[in-house]
Amino acid sequence: MKIFYSEEHRKHYPPFEVFDGGKRVPYYENPDRMDKILSALKKTDWAEFIIPVDFGLAPIYATHDEGYIQFLASAWTEWLTSDPEIAAAPEQNAFLPATFALRRMPRVPSTLLGKAGYYMMDLSACIVGATYEAALASANCALSAAQEAVSSQRSAFGLCRPPGHHAGKDYAGGYCFINNASVAANWLSAKGKVALLDIDYHAGNGTQDIFYERDDVLTISIHGDPDYEYPHYIGFADETGAGAGLGFHKNFPLPKDTDDEGYLSALDEAITMIKNFAPNYLILSAGMDTFKDDPLGTFKVTREGFSKIGQKIADLNLPTVIIMEGGYANEALGTNVVTLLENFK
Amino acid sequence: MKIFYSEEHRKHYPPFEVFDGGKRVPYYENPDRMDKILSALKKTDWAEFIIPVDFGLAPIYATHDEGYIQFLASAWTEWLTSDPEIAAAPEQNAFLPATFALRRMPRVPSTLLGKAGYYMMDLSACIVGATYEAALASANCALSAAQEAVSSQRSAFGLCRPPGHHAGKDYAGGYCFINNASVAANWLSAKGKVALLDIDYHAGNGTQDIFYERDDVLTISIHGDPDYEYPHYIGFADETGAGAGLGFHKNFPLPKDTDDEGYLSALDEAITMIKNFAPNYLILSAGMDTFKDDPLGTFKVTREGFSKIGQKIADLNLPTVIIMEGGYANEALGTNVVTLLENFK
Repeated sequence: MKIFYSEEHRKHYPPFEVFDGGKRVPYYENPDRMDKILSALKKTDWAEFIIPVDFGLAPIYATHDEGYIQFLASAWTEWLTSDPEIAAAPEQNAFLPATFALRRMPRVPSTLLGKAGYYMMDLSACIVGATYEAALASANCALSAAQEAVSSQRSAFGLCRPPGHHAGKDYAGGYCFINNASVAANWLSAKGKVALLDIDYHAGNGTQDIFYERDDVLTISIHGDPDYEYPHYIGFADETGAGAGLGFHKNFPLPKDTDDEGYLSALDEAITMIKNFAPNYLILSAGMDTFKDDPLGTFKVTREGFSKIGQKIADLNLPTVIIMEGGYANEALGTNVVTLLENFK
Repeated sequence: MKIFYSEEHRKHYPPFEVFDGGKRVPYYENPDRMDKILSALKKTDWAEFIIPVDFGLAPIYATHDEGYIQFLASAWTEWLTSDPEIAAAPEQNAFLPATFALRRMPRVPSTLLGKAGYYMMDLSACIVGATYEAALASANCALSAAQEAVSSQRSAFGLCRPPGHHAGKDYAGGYCFINNASVAANWLSAKGKVALLDIDYHAGNGTQDIFYERDDVLTISIHGDPDYEYPHYIGFADETGAGAGLGFHKNFPLPKDTDDEGYLSALDEAITMIKNFAPNYLILSAGMDTFKDDPLGTFKVTREGFSKIGQKIADLNLPTVIIMEGGYANEALGTNVVTLLENFK
């Protein structure tokens, strides 16, 4: 299997993130995640690593708001120049806002701090010096994998970091800046009919946001119910699309402690929906944080569960663009990814 | 002059707030502010301290969303019970969200963390155990001062803490939880025609939000331009009210380094607007953070400037309900408040 991977992500390693209650913690979405996945993949006889092609900004702007992307591009430099103390110790700093544009605040501010709270939804998508380049490279991994799926009509893996599925049309969130899976899905939608299935533990709010009014890309997310889990505001069962997109989005919010059996039952429904939609391509937002030992999750999916999940999805017999999303149980992450991917090799 | 003050604020002293960039700093809006003001007032021969009357929840609910107030009432207890580590050291903790309800997230979540990012707009309105009681007592100071203005037809001072003018109809922000001045203005609007003038350094976004569609209360705010200053999203010159309220709100966003002369020039315009509106009562949201040495401001208003500001407003000859808002140059705060108030005694 062709695996599109770039080393550009490494320097995107914010020194902290901030949890509810203002608690600073080490950044969970860290480069070690990739090392664990790379190590496990290198032990297989089927992983072929390829450096992604640069697709330029056009496919990014086709999915995201331009003002938002330009904010991502310049935020760190502006932040550094705003304060000599920050410029003196950039490695100890991360850029994230303290004030947010809630409802009835529709104006895009002209200033850095105003834009920050307009374009960022939480305290975990921290921007550092390497973030924008890493996010672009990550999107190129997804796009390259999509291109491979078109040309070979086989499945391919975009080993993306930072992840993407929490990034909306015009906002970052949940470690995500550019929505890799959505950028790839949008690009792919010009080549054929696309379904996007998100199996990350957290609701794919960004993907939902981007495709919510479109009927040409079916989007489905299986996740921890936002009634108890991040991202809190999106991912509910009654959100099924709007306008032309009505009926082309589906959320499966699942209870805490969902195990293999409960998960596979929701997945069966999702697969039936995909079959009925009859796409030419599938994008799989592959988060591994449904795993029983994940520090940011509550589900109880086992390694055997990942094998069955992969098998059921692979049985759709679609060229599948697998996109890396979350997963923070680093020690098991490589094995879990390989277990999933083996079904598509 | 009658000064309505309650000791209830003392225990509302969050151990920190979080600035842009995720930096924890000591809570600027602290009880010492009140001590400095009390000390200066006690040296005068005209300050008469009175404990406020409890007006109950009706005037609060007449101004704020009920769901929001109920969130304020229960948030801390829910937060404590959510985590044994927090319950073990409540004095080291403050409740504030890490995820915020941006645009296209209209749902009021059912859970504590979801509500937090829906009902709080920033990382400075931290909730601790005493916050709700302090906010209620602060609102009662404002209401009691308003009642005094009605019965005596003289000016009165609500020495409110926490402050209020950043709290919107359904959100906390900027050290503010209940919008004391707005609660008093709304209550007072049943007794006569009310104008509200906000001279705090920061835009009175909450007050603007609450009265934006009303023509019976004229609201005016003179402040640092949100183009460079908190609250970033509201307080621009082109925001002049909506619906029936069109023309009944006015913002004076002023440049950095505004001095006495520049300030008084804007104030003259505001006073002309108030005269033309011909109110029976004036509410004055009195922040002192326009002061030249304020750590959270950029203006250069002097003590002499506060004297002139007070004189010009007092020359309106209206029963004026003066409500304490911000001001963080604690050493000068007491003197500056007394200097302002002397015009109304």
